[in-house]
Amino acid sequence: MIKPRTPPGVMELLPRDQIAFQRMLDTIRRNFERFGFLPVETPVMELTEVLLTKSGGETERQVYFAESTGSREKNLQSGEATLPELALRFDLTVPLARYVAEHEHDLAFPFRRYQMQRVYRGERQQRGRFREFYQCDIDVVGKDALSVRYDAELPACIYAVFAELDIGAFTIQLNNRKLLRGFFESQGVAEGELQALVLREIDKLDKRGADYVRDTLTGPGFGLAADAVATILQFVEVRSTSHQDALAKLDALGDGNQSLREGVAELREVIELIRALGVPEQNYALNFSIARGLDYYTGTVYETTLNDYPSLGSICSGGRYEDLASHYTKSKLPGVGISIGLTRLFWQLQEAKLISTAESSVQVLVTQMSDALLPQCLAVANELRHGGLNTEVVMEASKLKQQFRYADRAGIRFVVVLGEDEIAKGVATVKDLRREDQFEVPRSELARTLRVELEQSRVMQ
Amino acid sequence: MIKPRTPPGVMELLPRDQIAFQRMLDTIRRNFERFGFLPVETPVMELTEVLLTKSGGETERQVYFAESTGSREKNLQSGEATLPELALRFDLTVPLARYVAEHEHDLAFPFRRYQMQRVYRGERQQRGRFREFYQCDIDVVGKDALSVRYDAELPACIYAVFAELDIGAFTIQLNNRKLLRGFFESQGVAEGELQALVLREIDKLDKRGADYVRDTLTGPGFGLAADAVATILQFVEVRSTSHQDALAKLDALGDGNQSLREGVAELREVIELIRALGVPEQNYALNFSIARGLDYYTGTVYETTLNDYPSLGSICSGGRYEDLASHYTKSKLPGVGISIGLTRLFWQLQEAKLISTAESSVQVLVTQMSDALLPQCLAVANELRHGGLNTEVVMEASKLKQQFRYADRAGIRFVVVLGEDEIAKGVATVKDLRREDQFEVPRSELARTLRVELEQSRVMQ
Repeated sequence: MIKPRTPPGVMELLPRDQIAFQRMLDTIRRNFERFGFLPVETPVMELTEVLLTKSGGETERQVYFAESTGSREKNLQSGEATLPELALRFDLTVPLARYVAEHEHDLAFPFRRYQMQRVYRGERQQRGRFREFYQCDIDVVGKDALSVRYDAELPACIYAVFAELDIGAFTIQLNNRKLLRGFFESQGVAEGELQALVLREIDKLDKRGADYVRDTLTGPGFGLAADAVATILQFVEVRSTSHQDALAKLDALGDGNQSLREGVAELREVIELIRALGVPEQNYALNFSIARGLDYYTGTVYETTLNDYPSLGSICSGGRYEDLASHYTKSKLPGVGISIGLTRLFWQLQEAKLISTAESSVQVLVTQMSDALLPQCLAVANELRHGGLNTEVVMEASKLKQQFRYADRAGIRFVVVLGEDEIAKGVATVKDLRREDQFEVPRSELARTLRVELEQSRVMQ
Repeated sequence: MIKPRTPPGVMELLPRDQIAFQRMLDTIRRNFERFGFLPVETPVMELTEVLLTKSGGETERQVYFAESTGSREKNLQSGEATLPELALRFDLTVPLARYVAEHEHDLAFPFRRYQMQRVYRGERQQRGRFREFYQCDIDVVGKDALSVRYDAELPACIYAVFAELDIGAFTIQLNNRKLLRGFFESQGVAEGELQALVLREIDKLDKRGADYVRDTLTGPGFGLAADAVATILQFVEVRSTSHQDALAKLDALGDGNQSLREGVAELREVIELIRALGVPEQNYALNFSIARGLDYYTGTVYETTLNDYPSLGSICSGGRYEDLASHYTKSKLPGVGISIGLTRLFWQLQEAKLISTAESSVQVLVTQMSDALLPQCLAVANELRHGGLNTEVVMEASKLKQQFRYADRAGIRFVVVLGEDEIAKGVATVKDLRREDQFEVPRSELARTLRVELEQSRVMQ
């Protein structure tokens, strides 16, 4: 006998939780499609050579390789440490780059795609860290050039997603790498390694506090002037509180150098278009401390936080990049993308008790009082299913009370009772377990009635 | 520069095909949920020890193992051929067994689950064979016992799936292993290895023809009596042509031995309930040649074929099994399940030109005539999205003709034109590319009008 268990670091859900998870996936996908993004799925396994364009490094340590017994034995016998041919994707960005480069001549640009699949990382074992997790990504990829206007569309789509996910107040925070670069240059911190190191220190502000960061930056390692550090610390604390305030804060940066001016102009256009796309002003803000991936992003950068749960950190991040697929094609493919790490987010929301698992995907239970009535029960179930209701039938008669208890525990809202009386009268008795209500309805009206009830509670929510 | 490409044996689709594939997945899932099945997802990686309960054999040769660099190097250095700790699932049945056994005390039985995920097999390279493919499974698992009535629910659900997938006439073919066993015993072919070998020969009927099979079975290897073989060949050619005919063919089998009688009684109940569930009689039939996995199934067995494309073989198969998870738990867990191999089916339908990729998931393209009008265009897009329409906006003005051509090529049905005239009048001009029709509509009516148009064409299909 083998103990049934999953490997460490994966999230497996019981059906009730899976239903809640699936609803989130559906909501995300619906909104991605509303904004005109096209679906893409790529294989979990990529050729190692293609996935790891540069070998070595942290990424390679975390990658899972896939190998069939045959090829593994061959490698073991040869004793050479050549990497297996296949590896599991560790994000959706490298597969996107490969996909766009491979299918370049079959795609229309700007290419707008969404992808919602699982990725794999050999993370250190730790609570809330997953080795298999969903990423839900949208990207717009241009050929040669891509208007900064798309940088506004992504946060508008993300707003629609989180508004509908209904997980509380949230803010999409915006910054711009050009603005950052220009500002730091004006403070004597030139682009390159130094700027990267300073940004890394800045990133510790929340955890270590301003004093620690100030001491480090003025200390022997960095040796920045005290007034430059003071200006930097003031700068990275800038947050806007409204649309007008955001514009004012951009104005207040003055003319500065070219990089700063470009960044300011881009951010201004982006927030104007975000507003034009109907995003309420409390849902977006400037945050000059956001830098994101230092080598990768070149313009707009995003982070999204839950106002009441800042400790969760950014639940959705991304930005603008200059060249998606330089390893695979000579074409210049600039893009902008944003990603929701849904597995981790779901886990965090569960921990914060923000996930409701009250309602099953099953909407109706058709009970059964005697074997002789089974064909009638099945016919009613058939009518309900045709009427668009997710319906389960009790297949073997048991005590009615037991059937009700099952429906209640399973989160099934409507219980339909069909006894001989009901069948003779051409009606069904319905118990609404949510509203604790009971009513009789003609069979011909049954599906429509329940659908209307469900529709109404959806609207009332 | 690295050549961007996928590994051999995987199916990766361009967006238009992916949309068609996604529609099929959605249809399957919707119908699975209509019948009250609950969603389950399991990790792609399982512990090798759990996945391969018995080591060696064909399965192990086909399994992909997953390993991070660290653990791989350790294994390579030790020089021992121990299997890696993790392996990728090769079907959804073993993960179901593990899941049910692991979560036994948190599940309600009969447990009805659906699972639609990819599985991995190191298949020999061959056209139409995939190393990564979707399985879409439904199973009902009982504790200690499970009524044969569920054996009727699965084909009813599969009927609903294929009817809505709209891929032509199909027949769900039914047989019963008890009936088979009883019949073969009555012909002197006892249960066990001989029966398995005979069934394997029978399976070659379609390919090799009756003469070949007759010669083999009466030949030196088997040595069956000529009249027994004649009876067997007659028996396995039985197909029913209607519900009444199916009942008559079961009656015609007579009393026989106990196993035959049980099989007949089960099949009779199953087809009566399939009818009660509203499945038209042309969509199910008896087929006494179906045996399926010889070690695994114990009662009802299913195969589904497309009437006009018999060469595709069974597109959906399954059956009743006695004990799902004997490797993991002492509890007896009988069940019944059925599976659609969607990747292969999609590929086959594509080859047979039965997949329509005419319509995009994007329903509306909002064109743009000048930069100054962009905010208005974004506002209209926002209204359309709120109205439930998947809407793409052209972000940078270009020739209108070019924007129309893009919509046409992309399969987007409605093109919305908003010039200064339209904005002044508070209207939008809509071109319906499918009906080649153009009309003007007040902006306040735009979303509703397009939604009604889409709804109507859906109903008319």
